[in-house]
Amino acid sequence: MLGTMQDWPLLVWKLIDHAATNHGDREVISLTCEGGVHRSNWRTVHGRARQVAEALRRMGIVPGDRVATLAWNTYRHVEGWYGISGMGGVAHTINPRLFDDQIVYIANHAEDRILFFDLTFVKLVERLAPRLTSIEHFVLMTDRSHMPADSTLDLLCYEELIAAEDPAMAWTPVPETAAAGLCYTSGTTGNPKGVQYSHRSNVLHAMAACMTDTFGLGAASVVCPIAPMYHANAWSIPYTAAAAGAKLVMGGPHFDAPTLQKLIVDEDVDVALAVPTIWLGMLQHLEKAGGGLGKLKRTAIGGSAVPRSMIEAFDTLHGVHVMQLWGMTEMSPLGTVGTASPEVLAMPYEQQIDYRVKQGRGLFGVEMKVVDEDGAEIPRNGTDFGRLMVRGPWIVGSYFKGDGGQVLDADGWFDTGDVATLDALGYMHIVDRSKDVIKSGGEWISSIDLENAAVGAPGVAEAAVIGIAHPKWDERPLLLVRQKEGATVSKEAVLAYLDGKIAKWWMPDDVLIVEDLPHTATGKLLKTELRERYKDYRLPTA
Amino acid sequence: MLGTMQDWPLLVWKLIDHAATNHGDREVISLTCEGGVHRSNWRTVHGRARQVAEALRRMGIVPGDRVATLAWNTYRHVEGWYGISGMGGVAHTINPRLFDDQIVYIANHAEDRILFFDLTFVKLVERLAPRLTSIEHFVLMTDRSHMPADSTLDLLCYEELIAAEDPAMAWTPVPETAAAGLCYTSGTTGNPKGVQYSHRSNVLHAMAACMTDTFGLGAASVVCPIAPMYHANAWSIPYTAAAAGAKLVMGGPHFDAPTLQKLIVDEDVDVALAVPTIWLGMLQHLEKAGGGLGKLKRTAIGGSAVPRSMIEAFDTLHGVHVMQLWGMTEMSPLGTVGTASPEVLAMPYEQQIDYRVKQGRGLFGVEMKVVDEDGAEIPRNGTDFGRLMVRGPWIVGSYFKGDGGQVLDADGWFDTGDVATLDALGYMHIVDRSKDVIKSGGEWISSIDLENAAVGAPGVAEAAVIGIAHPKWDERPLLLVRQKEGATVSKEAVLAYLDGKIAKWWMPDDVLIVEDLPHTATGKLLKTELRERYKDYRLPTA
Ligand SMILES: Nc1ncnc2c1ncn2[C@@H]1O[C@H](COP(=O)(O)OP(=O)(O)OP(=O)(O)O)[C@@H](O)[C@H]1O
Ligand SMILES: Nc1ncnc2c1ncn2[C@@H]1O[C@H](COP(=O)(O)OP(=O)(O)OP(=O)(O)O)[C@@H](O)[C@H]1O
Ligand SMILES: [Mg+2]
Ligand SMILES: [Mg+2]
Repeated sequence: MLGTMQDWPLLVWKLIDHAATNHGDREVISLTCEGGVHRSNWRTVHGRARQVAEALRRMGIVPGDRVATLAWNTYRHVEGWYGISGMGGVAHTINPRLFDDQIVYIANHAEDRILFFDLTFVKLVERLAPRLTSIEHFVLMTDRSHMPADSTLDLLCYEELIAAEDPAMAWTPVPETAAAGLCYTSGTTGNPKGVQYSHRSNVLHAMAACMTDTFGLGAASVVCPIAPMYHANAWSIPYTAAAAGAKLVMGGPHFDAPTLQKLIVDEDVDVALAVPTIWLGMLQHLEKAGGGLGKLKRTAIGGSAVPRSMIEAFDTLHGVHVMQLWGMTEMSPLGTVGTASPEVLAMPYEQQIDYRVKQGRGLFGVEMKVVDEDGAEIPRNGTDFGRLMVRGPWIVGSYFKGDGGQVLDADGWFDTGDVATLDALGYMHIVDRSKDVIKSGGEWISSIDLENAAVGAPGVAEAAVIGIAHPKWDERPLLLVRQKEGATVSKEAVLAYLDGKIAKWWMPDDVLIVEDLPHTATGKLLKTELRERYKDYRLPTA
Repeated sequence: MLGTMQDWPLLVWKLIDHAATNHGDREVISLTCEGGVHRSNWRTVHGRARQVAEALRRMGIVPGDRVATLAWNTYRHVEGWYGISGMGGVAHTINPRLFDDQIVYIANHAEDRILFFDLTFVKLVERLAPRLTSIEHFVLMTDRSHMPADSTLDLLCYEELIAAEDPAMAWTPVPETAAAGLCYTSGTTGNPKGVQYSHRSNVLHAMAACMTDTFGLGAASVVCPIAPMYHANAWSIPYTAAAAGAKLVMGGPHFDAPTLQKLIVDEDVDVALAVPTIWLGMLQHLEKAGGGLGKLKRTAIGGSAVPRSMIEAFDTLHGVHVMQLWGMTEMSPLGTVGTASPEVLAMPYEQQIDYRVKQGRGLFGVEMKVVDEDGAEIPRNGTDFGRLMVRGPWIVGSYFKGDGGQVLDADGWFDTGDVATLDALGYMHIVDRSKDVIKSGGEWISSIDLENAAVGAPGVAEAAVIGIAHPKWDERPLLLVRQKEGATVSKEAVLAYLDGKIAKWWMPDDVLIVEDLPHTATGKLLKTELRERYKDYRLPTA
C-alpha cells in the first residue's frame, strides 16, 4: 500500500524559490573580482538565476549538459550555479588551483559545453582554451566595462548575456534523481574522478545541514562560506543559506586573513566555514593585529583534522565555538559534526575538548561503521579502529562514467579510505587516512594525531608527519615543521614539548625544520609529494 | 543524465536507528496509565520497537496491513508506532476522543487487523469490539500485573507479546513511497477521511521540523509533545526528536495543567507543543498556583489561532517564546511557523507581535498561494485575502480509498479550506476558515480575529463567534463567551473592551454569556455545533 502524499520532487531550485518568496530581502553580499563589496538579496539573485537559465536554453544547452564554472564565491557564481541546475544542466565547479593538465583533463572528461569564469582566470583560460575540446562558449562573469580590451578568445559578457532575459521565466522540471552538479576529486593519486550530485542528494544534504546541531542556520543567521564552491559545493552553504533564509556573505577572490576579518566584522557574520589552514592564518593574524572577529559565534572547520590548540584558541581568545566537520567530496560533503552532546557538555572542560577533537557524530542520513581487514564490524568502543564505511542518500554510489569501477560493497557501503574509531556516544574519530597511517612494528601510529600535537608547540606554524622506511620497525615517523614568521624552533624543543603528550613509542625518530610544506588544491598537506621528497631519507635511528 | 549518488530510501525507521546509534543514552520519559514516571532511552525504545515489529510478523501482519493504536503519548506508543511502520505495516493512530460511531467507522474503513490500546480504553474497546469487523487481535499496552482480571475480550498483553522477540531483528525494507501511517480527519463535516502518510513524507517532514527556525531541536533539547500522537503524529515530534537525538518527555494520559507543569519542571523540558486550549488552561493555572515553568524556553502552539494575549502573557510573565504553528492533518501537519524574521526583530515590540499573531512563514517544502474565486493568484500584500492553496512533499495528494475524489487542482495545489493573506516578508495570516467567515454586507468578518480580541477581555476564559442570519446584512457576528471561574462578565463590558480594538462594523451584534462551548476531538471550537444550536437565534439588531 502506497502513501498518497503529493509527488513533489526534491529539486535544487526549490531552495532558492523558497528563499526568494519567504526571505526575499535577506542580503547576499560578495567581495568581487572587480573590487569592492556588492550587495544583493535572495529575490534579486533568484531572478538573475532564472535569467541565466533562460540564456543557457537560448544557447542550446539541454537538460543533462554540463556547464562549467571556474570562479570564486560570489553572487554571480551562485546565480550561475542555480541557473545551470535550474534549466536541467549540470553545474560543474572546477577547482582553479588544480594544475593545468588536471583542469584540461576534467573539463574534457566532463564534456563541458560552456565555461563561466571570473576575471582572475582570463590568462588561465586563454592558455588552456586550445586544449579544451568540448567548450563552445566562454562567458566572463563581469559587466561590459570590465571586459578585457583584447583577448585571444571570443568572450561573452555575463551581464550582457542575461540582461534581456525574463527573470520570471519558469525553471525546467527534471526527475529528482537527475544530476544537478559535478565535482571532481582532486586526484592526489591517479586521475580525478567525478561525483555527480543529484537534485535529490543536494536537497536532502541541505536539509540535514540546516538542522540545529549541524550548521543551525536560521533566517537571522549571517553565514560566510570561506570554503569555495568548487570544494564540494562550499559545503552546501549556497543551498543551506537559501533553505534557511540566512544572509549570505562571500569573500570572492580573497582568502587572506585581514580581508576576511574585515568582512566578518563589517557584515556581522555569525558563522563562517573554512579548512584549518585558513583559520590557522586567521589566528596568527589576530595574535599580531588584534581587532577580533565581531559577532562571529561559531566556526565550522573541516577537510583536515582540527588541532586541539585551535579549538582552545577560538574558545578562550575569541569566544568562538568550533564545530569540527568531517566529510568528503564524495559525501556532498557532510558526514559528521563535532558538536558536544549533553553527555559531553556535562564533563569538565578538558574532557569536553577530548570529544571535540573527535570528528563528531553522524548527521541523520549518514550511516557509519568501522570494519577490520576482513570486513567484519569492529565494536564501537572508542579504541578499536578500522576502515570507515559509510552509507547515505548524499554519498556517492559510483563515479562519473564508471571511473574507479564498483565502489560500493554488496550491502551498499562506501569505503572512505579513512581509518577511524566509533564510540558509545556516537562519536567518530579519524585516526588517519589509510594510506598515511604509519605502520610501526605491527602497530599503527596516527600521523594526524602527531601533527596536531606538534602544531601546539611554541613557534610551530604547521607540521607534517610521514612514515619513513625503517629496517627494524618497518616504518617510523618523520616530523616536518614549518616555523612561524620570526620564530626559531629546534628539534630538541619540539621533542621536549611532545614528551608526555603522546605515547613514548610514537615519538618521531627525527624532526626537520623546513621552509614550506606542499598542499593540495584544497589546501591540505600533500603527503604523496612529501613521501616522494623524502623517499631516500635515512632516519638517524635506522 | 542521472546523478550517481546512493539509493537510500527515506524510511521512518532510519530516524530511530539514528537516535539509537548516535544518541542512545538520551532519555525517553513517560507518565503512564499505570501511574508514575517511566524512564527509558532511545536505545531501549529502538530495541523494543524491533521486538514489536517481529511480534507483528509472527501474528501474520504483512507490509501494507493497517495496525491501529488507541493510545496516549507514551514510550509504548512510540515503540508500537515505529514497530508497525518498521515491519512495513501502516500505523493507524485513532483519536479516542471521537464518538463511538466515528471510531467504528474509521477502524472498519481502514480494515485495521490489530488494535493496540491503553488501559484507559478497556471499557471503550469492550463496548466497540462487537462492531469492529476487521480486528483480529486486541493488544493491551501494559504488563501482566496490570491486565484486567476479567474482560469480555480475549486480550493480549503487550509486554508478553514482545518479551521473547529479538531486539536486533532487522527492519523490513519497503519503497519510500509506501504508506507508514494513517490518520483520519476529525470529520466535523461528513465522514472522516484518511490521510496516508508515506515513509518519505514523514522523513522529509521530520527533517524540515528539525530546522533551526522550525522546532530547532538538537541533542541538548528536551521536548514535550502535549499534542497527541493521534493528532497528526504529535506534530511529528516522535520522529523529530529521534532525528535530533533530543530527550523526549511525554505526559501519557495527563492533560491537566498541574500535572503538565510538574512534568515540565521536573524533566527540564525546554520546548513543549500543544493547542491553544491547553496553554490557556496552563496560563490560568499559573496565574493562580504560581511556580513557573522551569527551563521552558519555547512553546509551539497551533491547531487554532494563537491570541495576542497568549503570546504576550508567555513573553512577559514566563519568559517563554511562543512559536505559532499552522498546519493540517492533511499536511503532516506543518505548514508555517511564526518565528520572527530579522526584519520583524528590528521592529518595536508591539509591531513584532503584529507579525507573531500571523501564522508565519512557510517551511522549506511548503509552497503557498492565495487565490480569488476564479483561482487567480492574489498579490502578496498582507491585505488582500483569498483561498489558501498549498503544495509540497508532505501534503496530501488524495484521501484513503479515493474518498473525497480529486482533491488537487490541475497544477497540483491542495485547497486548505482556509482564507488567508500573504505578505511581502513571506508571512501568512489566516483570516478564517472559509466556512466560518462571516459575510456581512458583501464584506468578510474574521471570526478568529474577533475571538482573539474578545479573549483578552477581563474575566473571559474562551470566546466563540458565529455568523447569524440578518435581514439587511446577510450575516452578522454573535459572540459567545465563557467566563473564567469566579469571574462575572457582562455584554456591555466586553463590547466596551472591544471598542477601538476592532473595526466599528465588526462589532458583534450580540454577546451571550454561556456555560460551556462545544469542542472537536482535537480540542477546537466546534462551529458546526454552535451554528446548529443558534440557527433560530434572532439578533437584537435584526
Ligand atoms: N575533520 C576532519 N578530520 C580529519 N580528516 C578530515 C576531516 N575532514 C576531512 N578529512 C579528510 O579529507 C578527506 C576528504 O577530503 P576531500 O574530499 O576534500 O578530498 P581529499 O580526499 O583530500 O582529496 P581527493 O580529492 O584527491 O580525494 C576525508 O576522507 C578525510 O581523510
Ligand atoms: N495557527 C493556526 N491559526 C489558525 N488556524 C489554524 C492554526 N493551525 C491550524 N488551524 C486550523 O486548523 C485546520 C487544520 O486542523 P486539523 O487538521 O487538526 O483538523 P480540523 O480541520 O480542525 O478538523 P477536520 O479533521 O474535521 O478537518 C486548518 O485548516 C486551520 O483552519
Ligand atoms: Mg578523497
Ligand atoms: Mg480540516
